[in-house]
Amino acid sequence: MEHKHILNVNQFSREDLDEIFVLTTEIQDFFEGDGHQLDPRINLVGNWDEPLEVPYDYLLASLFHEASTRTRFSFEAAHQKLGGTMLSVADMAGTSSQAKGETLADTVKTVSQFADIICLRHPEKNAAEKAAEVSNVPIINCGDGSNEHPTQAILDLYTIWREKETIDGQNILFFGDIRFARTIRSLKTLLNLYDVQVEHELCFYSQADPGDRGWNDKLKDCDVLYITRAQKERWPSPDAYRLKNIVVSFAELSKMKEDAIVLHPGPRTGEMNPQIDVDNRVAMWRQVKNGMYVRMALMKMLLRHSR
Amino acid sequence: MEHKHILNVNQFSREDLDEIFVLTTEIQDFFEGDGHQLDPRINLVGNWDEPLEVPYDYLLASLFHEASTRTRFSFEAAHQKLGGTMLSVADMAGTSSQAKGETLADTVKTVSQFADIICLRHPEKNAAEKAAEVSNVPIINCGDGSNEHPTQAILDLYTIWREKETIDGQNILFFGDIRFARTIRSLKTLLNLYDVQVEHELCFYSQADPGDRGWNDKLKDCDVLYITRAQKERWPSPDAYRLKNIVVSFAELSKMKEDAIVLHPGPRTGEMNPQIDVDNRVAMWRQVKNGMYVRMALMKMLLRHSR
Amino acid sequence: MEHKHILNVNQFSREDLDEIFVLTTEIQDFFEGDGHQLDPRINLVGNWDEPLEVPYDYLLASLFHEASTRTRFSFEAAHQKLGGTMLSVADMAGTSSQAKGETLADTVKTVSQFADIICLRHPEKNAAEKAAEVSNVPIINCGDGSNEHPTQAILDLYTIWREKETIDGQNILFFGDIRFARTIRSLKTLLNLYDVQVEHELCFYSQADPGDRGWNDKLKDCDVLYITRAQKERWPSPDAYRLKNIVVSFAELSKMKEDAIVLHPGPRTGEMNPQIDVDNRVAMWRQVKNGMYVRMALMKMLLRHSR
Repeated sequence: MEHKHILNVNQFSREDLDEIFVLTTEIQDFFEGDGHQLDPRINLVGNWDEPLEVPYDYLLASLFHEASTRTRFSFEAAHQKLGGTMLSVADMAGTSSQAKGETLADTVKTVSQFADIICLRHPEKNAAEKAAEVSNVPIINCGDGSNEHPTQAILDLYTIWREKETIDGQNILFFGDIRFARTIRSLKTLLNLYDVQVEHELCFYSQADPGDRGWNDKLKDCDVLYITRAQKERWPSPDAYRLKNIVVSFAELSKMKEDAIVLHPGPRTGEMNPQIDVDNRVAMWRQVKNGMYVRMALMKMLLRHSR
Repeated sequence: MEHKHILNVNQFSREDLDEIFVLTTEIQDFFEGDGHQLDPRINLVGNWDEPLEVPYDYLLASLFHEASTRTRFSFEAAHQKLGGTMLSVADMAGTSSQAKGETLADTVKTVSQFADIICLRHPEKNAAEKAAEVSNVPIINCGDGSNEHPTQAILDLYTIWREKETIDGQNILFFGDIRFARTIRSLKTLLNLYDVQVEHELCFYSQADPGDRGWNDKLKDCDVLYITRAQKERWPSPDAYRLKNIVVSFAELSKMKEDAIVLHPGPRTGEMNPQIDVDNRVAMWRQVKNGMYVRMALMKMLLRHSR
Repeated sequence: MEHKHILNVNQFSREDLDEIFVLTTEIQDFFEGDGHQLDPRINLVGNWDEPLEVPYDYLLASLFHEASTRTRFSFEAAHQKLGGTMLSVADMAGTSSQAKGETLADTVKTVSQFADIICLRHPEKNAAEKAAEVSNVPIINCGDGSNEHPTQAILDLYTIWREKETIDGQNILFFGDIRFARTIRSLKTLLNLYDVQVEHELCFYSQADPGDRGWNDKLKDCDVLYITRAQKERWPSPDAYRLKNIVVSFAELSKMKEDAIVLHPGPRTGEMNPQIDVDNRVAMWRQVKNGMYVRMALMKMLLRHSR
């Protein structure tokens, strides 16, 4: 994989994804295996891809202009477990010089004088691309408005690959906010690289939408149920749509295949009953953990040739 | 001590506290002694309880939903001085996915995929217990509303033990907000394990309260004066009570025993004159520093068997 | 250099500045040179001033009460690249115990129990001096209202010295907010130690100000053009002044000497066209990077005798 930045999913080929999955697997096996914590060199190195004596002594700037738990924490955890240090900002709009009128471009240009890699979440579409234009160092798009969230899509895909052993041939059912969820947009683009069947179920309806049909049939057929919340903060108006009366619960699970899996990029806000977490088909917490390892792999690959 | 979490003070026996005090003393002697900073291995290890070659390479998630200086900083300092790394959030409500409607349970479940230990401050009673139900990793209650603040109580007790060499037989006078200060509630519960005499002086009064009597006598008799601020943010209404016209100053100190000590969990907001800090009986700054070492001991004990 | 704190520029002699510039140059050469990242000891040490085996295992508390990008990040990056750990607070007013009524003095006294060095930005004049009175550890003033910003002034001066090889004899033109910009106030005080010619151009006007004269002549003559934004947040009222219609652009550059340099302490808010960054005379991004190395030198010097 030879990319300077991670800005959108369109930049990835199927070969890139294969390479990412293999490296992620190596990293995950390493960290989840025995004994790594007994070797004091582990925080400096990793035993993959580079000789042990090469330290990962990079500085990550984690610049978030919108709320986040999973994405920010998993990048920060991933980076530190590899041995790196951090500049972490949860509220860029309020606490950076942008509060004094600085442009995003100047902020990024400033930070790229210090940091080796920048994670950026921003409410505006293409913010990461604009950042990449002025940055000396790799930019990772951690969500630009309702547009893209490429590392989430890669970790979703990795989770399907890891859980089902293959992506080709899967029947994937999206239930949620197809219009505004950037995670769905990004994942669907990647799925175009594979031979999969994709179905949808909107979690809301408007006067113009057709009625709710076939939900039970879709559940029965799917191999992967990918749930998202309604992205109300991005709706044209708070009452533009009405939520459907669907909560994925044990009743839904009972209609699904024995080897199906349920994914959710989080946060959950009512469209999925947390009690079903006890069912092993609910893979959303393995998905969270996978995300940390995928991000380790992505940062390693971006920084591999940085010096 | 065999506890998975630190949720409230009721979980501690007198034997647990003895064990904590001994380990804390070892750690404090080590860090305040000569030469530790010259040994490059020190950040990885500690010379107590475990062989030197075992690194403390844990990741702490410090999740604060309410303002804090002492508690958050002393945990974060303690953890880093032991060699650990951190996810630090001062404003969980505003910057995490809880701003998008995520439940505390899901946030904790997410973070426990990455972190080895979680410090939680939350305005709701029993928030830490709810977190412990869903967490894969140890939870430390850093204050749940006006309910409990167990690590503060342990460090308060450690300070009395360290300063007075024993806890049994002490006369302990609480001056402050007995009704709403979680630090007092937690400390008083621990003091029940010892043979001590406890007295009170409220820092405020209502129509229903008896008049102010015996303050001077109480001061004269006490070995430990434990001061807290009025917890106005937790009062039923801002004008539910009126503050008494008492500020602990040189006049009060002059009435106290030569070997008495004055503690305050902070923050001070007027009930104690900062000028008396020059009197060696004012132990509140030693108390702050002790807190860091107590928290090192507690985290070491919780993480001892985590892998 | 023998200073316990860095509070204002008046404390520095020309000899101090020479010493700072030499140490900064050593550090900068070291970090920008080849190979440092291949030596796993580098995060612990530095090859200047102290033997390699002495670790820089200090804890920095970065306490910001006002928005910042450059200053906070460059201190935090500098400190971590040297090997240190951090307590970082971008919003002290909202998330520390000051939200519960604690005084700045008590906050600083608390933090100085844990930290080895404190960086403080605060809206009130002389806040850093008050902090120094109660702190056990070095305080670095990172801006106290419209008063002082000494480390910015030192890095500005270092940049002039590095770019022009000497400070004596330079013609320095300030364009911006002479009245309220603390960076200008601090830098001008340091320039008094040298044999330089200083000129001004206000970026705003009031009824009482003389008209705009001689801008083109000043541009032609200057060796260093130092631009600042209008500090509107510190103006007596939002409409106390009106901005002049001046934006430093290619037209201005074309009037300047071939070897002149353009500095800006950031953030830019319209008084300078970002497109001119392509002209090598625009040194503001080298200035940002220099700032990190200057801050490494300053922290090394303050901490040299701390144990």
